[in-house]
Amino acid sequence: MTSRRVITLLTDFGTADYFVAAVKGVILTINPEVSLVDITHEIPPQDIESGAFTLLTCYRDFPAGTIHVAVVDPGVGSSRRPIVVRAGTHYFVGPDNGLFSYVYDREPSVEVFHATAAEHFRQSPSPTFHGRAIFAPMAAALSKGLGAETLGPTITDQVRLPPIAPTKDDTGKLHARIIHIDHFGNCITNITHGDLLDRASFRLYVNGKAVETLRRFFTDEHGSKEEIFTIWGSAGFLEIAINGASAAEVLKAKRGDLVIVSA
Amino acid sequence: MTSRRVITLLTDFGTADYFVAAVKGVILTINPEVSLVDITHEIPPQDIESGAFTLLTCYRDFPAGTIHVAVVDPGVGSSRRPIVVRAGTHYFVGPDNGLFSYVYDREPSVEVFHATAAEHFRQSPSPTFHGRAIFAPMAAALSKGLGAETLGPTITDQVRLPPIAPTKDDTGKLHARIIHIDHFGNCITNITHGDLLDRASFRLYVNGKAVETLRRFFTDEHGSKEEIFTIWGSAGFLEIAINGASAAEVLKAKRGDLVIVSA
Amino acid sequence: MTSRRVITLLTDFGTADYFVAAVKGVILTINPEVSLVDITHEIPPQDIESGAFTLLTCYRDFPAGTIHVAVVDPGVGSSRRPIVVRAGTHYFVGPDNGLFSYVYDREPSVEVFHATAAEHFRQSPSPTFHGRAIFAPMAAALSKGLGAETLGPTITDQVRLPPIAPTKDDTGKLHARIIHIDHFGNCITNITHGDLLDRASFRLYVNGKAVETLRRFFTDEHGSKEEIFTIWGSAGFLEIAINGASAAEVLKAKRGDLVIVSA
Repeated sequence: MTSRRVITLLTDFGTADYFVAAVKGVILTINPEVSLVDITHEIPPQDIESGAFTLLTCYRDFPAGTIHVAVVDPGVGSSRRPIVVRAGTHYFVGPDNGLFSYVYDREPSVEVFHATAAEHFRQSPSPTFHGRAIFAPMAAALSKGLGAETLGPTITDQVRLPPIAPTKDDTGKLHARIIHIDHFGNCITNITHGDLLDRASFRLYVNGKAVETLRRFFTDEHGSKEEIFTIWGSAGFLEIAINGASAAEVLKAKRGDLVIVSA
Repeated sequence: MTSRRVITLLTDFGTADYFVAAVKGVILTINPEVSLVDITHEIPPQDIESGAFTLLTCYRDFPAGTIHVAVVDPGVGSSRRPIVVRAGTHYFVGPDNGLFSYVYDREPSVEVFHATAAEHFRQSPSPTFHGRAIFAPMAAALSKGLGAETLGPTITDQVRLPPIAPTKDDTGKLHARIIHIDHFGNCITNITHGDLLDRASFRLYVNGKAVETLRRFFTDEHGSKEEIFTIWGSAGFLEIAINGASAAEVLKAKRGDLVIVSA
Repeated sequence: MTSRRVITLLTDFGTADYFVAAVKGVILTINPEVSLVDITHEIPPQDIESGAFTLLTCYRDFPAGTIHVAVVDPGVGSSRRPIVVRAGTHYFVGPDNGLFSYVYDREPSVEVFHATAAEHFRQSPSPTFHGRAIFAPMAAALSKGLGAETLGPTITDQVRLPPIAPTKDDTGKLHARIIHIDHFGNCITNITHGDLLDRASFRLYVNGKAVETLRRFFTDEHGSKEEIFTIWGSAGFLEIAINGASAAEVLKAKRGDLVIVSA
């Protein structure tokens, strides 16, 4: 590969401390030619599911060969394994705690390696900051063309979160939930097109409120401004929204809240 | 052009979601050699005027040939046009909703193109996220040397905000306003040097408070620490400030507040 | 040097305004080949000590030859000097107000230059924004290979903060303090390994609370979840922490709070 390799970063580090800079410094010391892109550093502290979701929604927008470093790591220093994943045309580096679950679920070809090749670790690894000590140098090594299989043995028992998909009950109702609330207050559910294929229309209930309208755009010349509606969002999931206002605020919705789709 | 092209990003996306990363991923997939710079992603949601101001204050600091992608886009999915602008030595890509108004007002040479060349759109464009589907690939195409005129037909009826300049009343008073409050609480007005050329000195009123002192620096050995003063800010506008404190807090000032300069 | 040079940025500018972008634009105009890395822009406004600490904790993670631009600058426009520092294999550019003190204390070889070479300043320097007018072009000049000594005369009376180290009283007690509270609520003290070499064990007091446990990892199968403990942090200082919660919140601790280590 002759063009510059991309390494993305997704963490719960925030941006006020030295954590993100330390990771970038270590990477650039090993490979000054990479292109570093922040996905976000505002994953809620130690919220693995939120990190897994955000990674899912954008990793495929990056070029083939991109290396995604994700660090949401409540178990740092414990026995949880550091891993390197090759999935489709992308690489992932981080803790084995489920953070890459939704990638495993989506990609047809997935290989997971337990990253044990200590000669690639930073010389004096801190037991509390594997982002700098292990994940950054592993990602930098990959970016220089090293094969993932040289970083440690294959494993097949990697940690997986429950599947992201909603469940269906005996009466045909879909039990879904809000998996993310975005910057604009839109409530992203875990419902995909496939989940609603058998329904000509649907009605959705969230926090005791019914939502019936499905829009194509946020703006709709025919819709009222205050109306709560659903819309197929850019991440491929059904979203609950209000044009020009925060649906989360109006619905008092939080991540995890139940969403029922009537039969 | 042999050196690396710069693409800047200015949005109201915030930095907690996947939106900014998706835009960057699409750009780097098309042109991995660009240098990406965030102007800010903290424009207040859907506040076009605020986006236009922030872009105005820094676009000229970037190299000739820089491509500025700006997405503050309440009308996404409606009939508002995506546009590409060539203004002086810079390029701009975004929605036709006034976001580039202050650039039009400042640059002597401006060409605006309705970006209709769908062969450059991302394959399955989301109707709710033109940043990823249209603006990112258009900017990447420009960065590879494609001419702006190949992206769509010229238009001359682009949307413009009211001019940023203050107005003068019959008695010679200047009616200005606070157009931005910065991180330090300084209140930036829309008053430029040209607006005060005919005044040897001036007195300014904001929220019932008179401000008379004009300082050259924030620190002033002769001034008191608590004094509210005006200062010519780095963006070229008159600012209302207090050394070491937030003028906005002390004055209870908000963006949009009226500022009167006495005759 | 043939590989891309890194320029890092650490400021109290926040990320909502045009300030950071203006600095980057000026640098890229002079040297489009540099790799720009944000350390943080969330240093509390005008808090020099906090900036000095954050710089200390990560500058050594960057490649040799990296240029660190740091702007926390309450005295901008006054008589405080702009400086360029060569310390070990790193460069530093910013105001002479103590921001680089902890680098001076750590590096065996330090040279400080009063940056007076106005031919490198931006053409119309703003008296209120030396980040754009002076520090950015100085850093860009260094990144193109210019020697630090060509930017101005050597000085030896640079401003220094008090040393970061704790003090010992007559009874052998260590008087330390909290120098930083991180994103997770961990309280970083100014205590290093060297300060505790003569103690087999220790007890620490902060805000009337005693802390006795020293852990190696945040997670500890044997420790209780709510326990307050100390841990050697990744920055090389002793930290006060609670697994999965904010120690700062539980202890009602603020930066600057006294920490006593019993004799």
